[in-house]
Amino acid sequence: MNGRGFVLWFTGLSGAGKSTLAERVGTELRRRGLAVEILDGDEVRENLSKGLGFSKEDRDTNVRRIAFVANLLAKHGVVAITAAISPYRAIRDEARALASAPFVEIHVDASLAVVEKRDIKGLYAKARARLVPNMTGVDDPYEAPLAPEVVVRTGDETIDQSVDRIVAYLASRGLTSSV
Amino acid sequence: MNGRGFVLWFTGLSGAGKSTLAERVGTELRRRGLAVEILDGDEVRENLSKGLGFSKEDRDTNVRRIAFVANLLAKHGVVAITAAISPYRAIRDEARALASAPFVEIHVDASLAVVEKRDIKGLYAKARARLVPNMTGVDDPYEAPLAPEVVVRTGDETIDQSVDRIVAYLASRGLTSSV
Repeated sequence: MNGRGFVLWFTGLSGAGKSTLAERVGTELRRRGLAVEILDGDEVRENLSKGLGFSKEDRDTNVRRIAFVANLLAKHGVVAITAAISPYRAIRDEARALASAPFVEIHVDASLAVVEKRDIKGLYAKARARLVPNMTGVDDPYEAPLAPEVVVRTGDETIDQSVDRIVAYLASRGLTSSV
Repeated sequence: MNGRGFVLWFTGLSGAGKSTLAERVGTELRRRGLAVEILDGDEVRENLSKGLGFSKEDRDTNVRRIAFVANLLAKHGVVAITAAISPYRAIRDEARALASAPFVEIHVDASLAVVEKRDIKGLYAKARARLVPNMTGVDDPYEAPLAPEVVVRTGDETIDQSVDRIVAYLASRGLTSSV
């Protein structure tokens, strides 16, 4: 058997730093001998949700699929790290309820002002120019978690600091060792 | 780590015995200490492919998703057993090419006459009455594998015989032990 699997669920606006943190925390956990799989938002859309759009219904379907796959992996001892915006609270709570392994929700909390200034993918500029519809934070809601296990404020702290706090939290739960 | 993961891919007509064999072989492998996950056709459609129909394009999309998830599990040491009709050869071959772990294709070969006589889900009667469209073997093609690792003829042998032959094949490949 792998170690104890769990689901590490990142949520936050586009550009908040979810994918970067997922990769960095994943690296830390692999270094400790854990089996890690990262289900990144864009990759999952390509492989599991091609054809779905960004309506509430389609987003919910996409997030449910991520939750289904993450849970399959976690129950077999894999650390399943998800990094999709997952803007709706009810579906994230559904993912938590579905999980048969520990579920750790990380709110990657960066203000719209911060992510819009970064605008790494150029999506916010397009959304403001009405070239991209349904942009979370601009046209579409983002419902922040009410009780996430960890909140990282990537506008106020460095990536290293965020990674350290997440790993420290996981260690406090006994989730960073492979046996 | 779990043991050596692999993909055990059942293909065949509806009613040929894929799900039954998947469950029975899964039980045998769990008994030997392997981590097993069964991705059954109906369950996967519910969780990964709701909204897709049975056109060639939709079937291909569904099978690609199963292949993606099976491969994620197999690379982490899980025996991922799939049991979907997966009627098109090219997409099954794509699943094989994608796999980063051993890929074992089992053709559950029962003639249309046999499965239509069984008609466990009542689907063939409905297809003949034109109440169910796109029924594989009736309106839609089934492309048998050209070089499956194992062929089981469930019209001519018992379930126990089929299970024994599959497990014996896996043992010959060294895939039935957990280390």
